[in-house]
Amino acid sequence: MSQYQALKQRVLTANLQLPKYGLVTFTWGNVSEIDRELGVIAIKPSGVEYEDMSVDDIVVVDLEGNRLEGTLNPSSDTATHIELYHAFPQIGGVVHTHSRSATIWAQAGIDIPALGTTHADYFYGDIPCTRKLSSREIAGEYEKNTGLVIVEEFQQRRIQAMSIPSVIVAGHAPFSWGKDASDAVHNAVVLEEISAMALATRSLNSGIKIQPELSDKHYLRKHGENAYYGQN
Amino acid sequence: MSQYQALKQRVLTANLQLPKYGLVTFTWGNVSEIDRELGVIAIKPSGVEYEDMSVDDIVVVDLEGNRLEGTLNPSSDTATHIELYHAFPQIGGVVHTHSRSATIWAQAGIDIPALGTTHADYFYGDIPCTRKLSSREIAGEYEKNTGLVIVEEFQQRRIQAMSIPSVIVAGHAPFSWGKDASDAVHNAVVLEEISAMALATRSLNSGIKIQPELSDKHYLRKHGENAYYGQN
Amino acid sequence: MSQYQALKQRVLTANLQLPKYGLVTFTWGNVSEIDRELGVIAIKPSGVEYEDMSVDDIVVVDLEGNRLEGTLNPSSDTATHIELYHAFPQIGGVVHTHSRSATIWAQAGIDIPALGTTHADYFYGDIPCTRKLSSREIAGEYEKNTGLVIVEEFQQRRIQAMSIPSVIVAGHAPFSWGKDASDAVHNAVVLEEISAMALATRSLNSGIKIQPELSDKHYLRKHGENAYYGQN
Amino acid sequence: MSQYQALKQRVLTANLQLPKYGLVTFTWGNVSEIDRELGVIAIKPSGVEYEDMSVDDIVVVDLEGNRLEGTLNPSSDTATHIELYHAFPQIGGVVHTHSRSATIWAQAGIDIPALGTTHADYFYGDIPCTRKLSSREIAGEYEKNTGLVIVEEFQQRRIQAMSIPSVIVAGHAPFSWGKDASDAVHNAVVLEEISAMALATRSLNSGIKIQPELSDKHYLRKHGENAYYGQN
Repeated sequence: MSQYQALKQRVLTANLQLPKYGLVTFTWGNVSEIDRELGVIAIKPSGVEYEDMSVDDIVVVDLEGNRLEGTLNPSSDTATHIELYHAFPQIGGVVHTHSRSATIWAQAGIDIPALGTTHADYFYGDIPCTRKLSSREIAGEYEKNTGLVIVEEFQQRRIQAMSIPSVIVAGHAPFSWGKDASDAVHNAVVLEEISAMALATRSLNSGIKIQPELSDKHYLRKHGENAYYGQN
Repeated sequence: MSQYQALKQRVLTANLQLPKYGLVTFTWGNVSEIDRELGVIAIKPSGVEYEDMSVDDIVVVDLEGNRLEGTLNPSSDTATHIELYHAFPQIGGVVHTHSRSATIWAQAGIDIPALGTTHADYFYGDIPCTRKLSSREIAGEYEKNTGLVIVEEFQQRRIQAMSIPSVIVAGHAPFSWGKDASDAVHNAVVLEEISAMALATRSLNSGIKIQPELSDKHYLRKHGENAYYGQN
Repeated sequence: MSQYQALKQRVLTANLQLPKYGLVTFTWGNVSEIDRELGVIAIKPSGVEYEDMSVDDIVVVDLEGNRLEGTLNPSSDTATHIELYHAFPQIGGVVHTHSRSATIWAQAGIDIPALGTTHADYFYGDIPCTRKLSSREIAGEYEKNTGLVIVEEFQQRRIQAMSIPSVIVAGHAPFSWGKDASDAVHNAVVLEEISAMALATRSLNSGIKIQPELSDKHYLRKHGENAYYGQN
Repeated sequence: MSQYQALKQRVLTANLQLPKYGLVTFTWGNVSEIDRELGVIAIKPSGVEYEDMSVDDIVVVDLEGNRLEGTLNPSSDTATHIELYHAFPQIGGVVHTHSRSATIWAQAGIDIPALGTTHADYFYGDIPCTRKLSSREIAGEYEKNTGLVIVEEFQQRRIQAMSIPSVIVAGHAPFSWGKDASDAVHNAVVLEEISAMALATRSLNSGIKIQPELSDKHYLRKHGENAYYGQN
């Protein structure tokens, strides 16, 4: 039995949430989880159908992307995941999809604006859209550079990764993260829903924004030390 | 056996209608019903998955929000429900969701206009959007104040609660109500459908409104003493 | 065994297609079929849930709307169906829904324009939107007058009922018809699809229309004596 | 046992993918596959319901459209498929649908613009919209001329059929193709998804385009000799 069995099982389960929640078409999308003590990441294999995937297909790599376990190639986006784990030590899981509404905002190259409490319950401000990658960044280590441009955006805007656990990459699609793989997928589902709501809200009322006090209230009643939502 | 068993069962059933009709994601949303003779409200627990919910998870509180039965925390929106029950003696059930299209109108901060007979069959006029809560109202007893701002809107516009059994809270989402929990959810489903229709209708024809005579006709053929729709 | 058993069974089957194809919410919508030899119409009862409906619930009325068989009230829209059967002798079935996209065009009060071959395969020109009913027509025999205003629209525009087997009633919703109840529902499904397509087509290209030659080609390859589509 | 049994089975399977992926209503749509060695094409019969279709219903025709096997009429669009097989020797399967979002772009008469990497992963540039057919082309061999106008568009724009495996026909709907029937359907599913994304992207940001370098990167990491996506 692999020492990574439980990790791989969680990553498989989280990947299978993607078709369940309608976030993916065919083999699109990928979820990973890191074990920071062991220094390994388990991730979906590249180009494999969800309905055929088993726990043995999940690939384990080290933090340089070297394959430690599994016979399949890891997701082609593995290098992006690795950069996010390096830069954001609080996160334990990463997910990438081309979910429709979030991808629309990414293609438009516009931050997803915070317009209501559904957004504020999960994201403490607008969801950033990265700058475009340069021609050099695209021609070089593209997937790694995609991760770096995400990190740059969060650093320049001084955003804590866990307070806005999603990003959209200009011309591409969203990445989300969380405390583990399952939490990352949870955030990806919410991201898609608020992206769809934001599209129509802005077409009804182009200048609208959420009140800052209302954003604070909803974010902080679910997160942080004074949270009172749920059973905690 | 709890003296509230039948009430709790009805509230459980009504809550389970929310995912069935596509009104909720994850644990979002909550339904309650009041027993005015006993002076108690049964309501969904906070942050529990619908698929895991049993009748024993339903929480019973008194009209001040004190828990009388159940081990879980009641919905964080319980105080809003209580204010609606206090102000609107005709209502027996309340539901809160973040259903997509109604939430879009709430985020835009615009009343949902009556544009056709689908609307008029259930709602006797535009669905009001509340004013924004003040900073003080948000910082204070927020959920209670959300209820109060709804009540204020209905009082200022001189609307009977049962003639327009829904509202949207600015920057937030809808609340609906009805003669019991099931009826409240019924109205929430209709609200979502007419909200979606209204979005596209206004984009095709921005100035359109329903004829007042047609609104009267459809509302009154289903409601009131001369109603002739259905088997009654 | 009722002499209307087969007719009633066909009407039940056609009504059950409405939820299957996503055209209705709750008890909304109704389908009827006429037996012109017997001079009777079988129609859905008013306000009954689709999932609970049995063949015995289907109501049989004569051409003046008097109930001949069944214990439930017929659909409140029966008088509209009757006017259509009177005016359009070629039709054998009628359906009324509030299907989302067709209702949007009805609420906007705008004809559904013929924009492509999907439309032309079934409808030989724009789908007419009726004029608004007058206050007197609404206050009087409203459902009968709804039928009369539909007939008036087809007569004034010199449209054959079977060449454009649908209409939208201003501020209300669509009616469709066909050679029998099943065919009427088939047309209602197509109407909903082309209504949705037309909404987005016009938002992309506001002035576009189908080429008349292309409309002719597609309509006539499926309809009339030189049709060559299908297995006939 | 027919010598075409395996071919017919693949064509049946590919046709049944159309309702599974939500690309068709009723009997709309059709898929074919060519066996270039035998010089035959297997294609869906005209106007047959998907749920009733069996492998014996699949029709085999030669490259002039003469029926070699089967008792049903082949799809009325067979002549269009044949022209595509003649002009594009690299392709092995063709599919035609009226899938909603791609048809919207066809009705609008506008190329589907490349706006993101979802598009670039499959299509190396904008999806062409053909010119309108002339009155003479419509009145003559319409289905064959539809094929010819597609071929003309690809030749005039100097596009390789396999580098942009889809087209939209003005006022009509999309055709897609691939190395076999299954691959053609795969491309049709992607086409529908990117068409939906492009509609909303352009409404958010009307002038946006994908960076050419990013389009190159994504297309070439999945296609061609240096591809590194998947398990190949």
